[in-house]
Amino acid sequence: MTGLVDLSLAEMAGGLDDGAISSVDLVTAHLTAIEAANPILNAVWDVDADGALAAALASDVRRGRGDSLSELDGIPFGLKDNIDVAGRPTSDGLGTAWIPAGDAAITERLREAGAIPLAKLAMHEAALGGTSDNPHRGRVDNPVLPGHTPGGSSGGSAAAVAAGLVPLALGTDTLGSVRIPAAYCGVVGFKPSFDLLPTLGVTPLCWTLDHVGPIARSVIDLALTLPVLTNMEIEEVELSGLVLGWPAEVDACEIEPAVQGVIDAALDRLRAGGVQIRQVKLGFGDLSILRRAALLVIEAEGAVALEKIWEDHPEALSETLSGMLSYGRDAAAARYVKAYRRIEDAGEVISAALDVVDALILPTTPQTPFAADARAPVNQADLTSIANYAGTPAVSLPVPGGGAPVGLQLVGGFYEDAQLLGIALAVEDLLRS
Amino acid sequence: MTGLVDLSLAEMAGGLDDGAISSVDLVTAHLTAIEAANPILNAVWDVDADGALAAALASDVRRGRGDSLSELDGIPFGLKDNIDVAGRPTSDGLGTAWIPAGDAAITERLREAGAIPLAKLAMHEAALGGTSDNPHRGRVDNPVLPGHTPGGSSGGSAAAVAAGLVPLALGTDTLGSVRIPAAYCGVVGFKPSFDLLPTLGVTPLCWTLDHVGPIARSVIDLALTLPVLTNMEIEEVELSGLVLGWPAEVDACEIEPAVQGVIDAALDRLRAGGVQIRQVKLGFGDLSILRRAALLVIEAEGAVALEKIWEDHPEALSETLSGMLSYGRDAAAARYVKAYRRIEDAGEVISAALDVVDALILPTTPQTPFAADARAPVNQADLTSIANYAGTPAVSLPVPGGGAPVGLQLVGGFYEDAQLLGIALAVEDLLRS
Repeated sequence: MTGLVDLSLAEMAGGLDDGAISSVDLVTAHLTAIEAANPILNAVWDVDADGALAAALASDVRRGRGDSLSELDGIPFGLKDNIDVAGRPTSDGLGTAWIPAGDAAITERLREAGAIPLAKLAMHEAALGGTSDNPHRGRVDNPVLPGHTPGGSSGGSAAAVAAGLVPLALGTDTLGSVRIPAAYCGVVGFKPSFDLLPTLGVTPLCWTLDHVGPIARSVIDLALTLPVLTNMEIEEVELSGLVLGWPAEVDACEIEPAVQGVIDAALDRLRAGGVQIRQVKLGFGDLSILRRAALLVIEAEGAVALEKIWEDHPEALSETLSGMLSYGRDAAAARYVKAYRRIEDAGEVISAALDVVDALILPTTPQTPFAADARAPVNQADLTSIANYAGTPAVSLPVPGGGAPVGLQLVGGFYEDAQLLGIALAVEDLLRS
Repeated sequence: MTGLVDLSLAEMAGGLDDGAISSVDLVTAHLTAIEAANPILNAVWDVDADGALAAALASDVRRGRGDSLSELDGIPFGLKDNIDVAGRPTSDGLGTAWIPAGDAAITERLREAGAIPLAKLAMHEAALGGTSDNPHRGRVDNPVLPGHTPGGSSGGSAAAVAAGLVPLALGTDTLGSVRIPAAYCGVVGFKPSFDLLPTLGVTPLCWTLDHVGPIARSVIDLALTLPVLTNMEIEEVELSGLVLGWPAEVDACEIEPAVQGVIDAALDRLRAGGVQIRQVKLGFGDLSILRRAALLVIEAEGAVALEKIWEDHPEALSETLSGMLSYGRDAAAARYVKAYRRIEDAGEVISAALDVVDALILPTTPQTPFAADARAPVNQADLTSIANYAGTPAVSLPVPGGGAPVGLQLVGGFYEDAQLLGIALAVEDLLRS
């Protein structure tokens, strides 16, 4: 039986618009879905049922008067637990929580458009890791591949969207934390250009690399959120004639054969659709060296970002986390400066490559979701992090097929978010046809 | 007797244009001036007489054919010794030197406009200090106040321009190193918006705060260089109706009474000219705390920037310099991150203040040039460094009068360099009338 939660975001918005469904029904259906699925999934940590139902009622009244605030008016959404919602606990995935008085800027932006904050979602501790296996709150399951990781650090966001607990979720992405779980859960994750979405009210981890980004079930659904999140409208793009660049560095990244096979088949379909796929050599050398540099930058900035919580609640940080932060805090400043410059230089190389192609195309991750008890592969974020170094927009979309989820990643030019999502929409359209 | 070197840059350009003078005459006159004055001044470290005369001849031939490259075609200029000129030694003020194969990007830009690199100019060791009293190459004298410091770190650039050894010089400015010596030598120094002028081929000290900037004898002269350096044209600005902000923080900076008196008189004249001067509270607290934060950032980045020279030629760095760099290199990364964020936050506060006034107005330095044997005052760069934190353009222009030189500083909005120089031109015009 198909219920309200199985509709696409676009269908929900259409139904609200023509009066076929109400926001109260929509919120109620998602509350029911959370109640049913979350005991096993553990993707949702906090639900504001009363607040959401009141907001839904108000939305329905507005709609009735013809005063709808936006296409998202009445649509419920979830937020990773490092993004503030006024009056609801924020934990940042730590073993403590606090109640912010106000919304994060991005929460406020969605709320002002009539969207309804329904749930706070599970995450990897402090957004620093790729499994969402949280030492304080337990593990998040992968709804499309049970017993496997949903990825991280925004694992709860991707799992909740994939399982129909919310049609839209916000995550954060420092090295790939929106796109990796989106790929693993078979949904779409988007990391916009650096600073395009405000981070005020989002618990920082690394000021240099942090981004906020949305997760939805399709690029069509994501497109609907773009005008509200950014004031941009998605651009219409023709696939035929597009030039996409495949970074030569990907071939040195030990891509799992299952992933390579699915991606190769997708590339063939794109070529048949008139897309030119050209190998580009970015030339920044070993991705693993960059990853280690980025990790040091994150650990040092994280030590400062989390300093106060760490001092006040030392028990709220796992040994693993406090070990990483101690390492970053105490490293020599010159090492931090070198690491910072290394990733900044890599970012410039990536930006330069984007001057000669319409977008880069590559897998989101070198592997499909690993078993929940397995150790996260070290190269898990090697293919996503390059867009964080460059600050350029990047989107992961699922490649349809029968096997384990595989994400296809597109990386666009700085502030060309609307064009990148236009390309992604055309690619999604072709791959689903 | 007034010679060619006493003409303004604008007069030189006009004379070249109408054929009254030749570039060969102009270069020859400056070579003669250098020969006469430099033994005492020590502002010039290297002269390319042959290269400059050949370039002057070529310029004159172009002019004769009506093929002048720009208003600066045939004008000689000097460069601080951390800016590369192909085939001429760069020392960065260290006890060693190397011969770059190519020009710095900014040198090339001027050379392509027909301007002639004539001399490499003295500087504080590694651009890290405010006296230009160099442990390897001796002290630079102040041409307008002999026996006193010319300031630094671009002390040779300001002294050479003030003494008529070159009509235009390039310097670098990390905390005030263009504007401080300009103020002390009674000339005009301009630090453009961050990254407006390219730093490729300039020995780095601190990637976060380094800027390249020109020094000339008047704002009118500087205005002439703007289209060549940046493609911007200076904006015409009416003084009447301008709103300039006086930062409240300046009053806590122990301004020397002689400086305060001269500045107050200048403010009175501006008010009489229709300018509204409004106190603005920037609100970033103690300037000395910011200065210490900035110094740590410079020391840590400097340790990385100079690492190779330091390793290869440890004897080329004074004990003072290597002590500072060691301190920065070995500091905990978390301290660097905090210091970086402190100055970045201050920069945002300054930028916000510039949203409500046309420019900030304040002294360039809290004091007039100090005696050559005195220790540099600790607060010397407190009033200039704020524009480095913000990355906003800032210009120091002399306040005419009989006493020791006093610089008046104007700070404008990010990338509003053309408007800022327009304001400076109008202020210069009023103060000289």
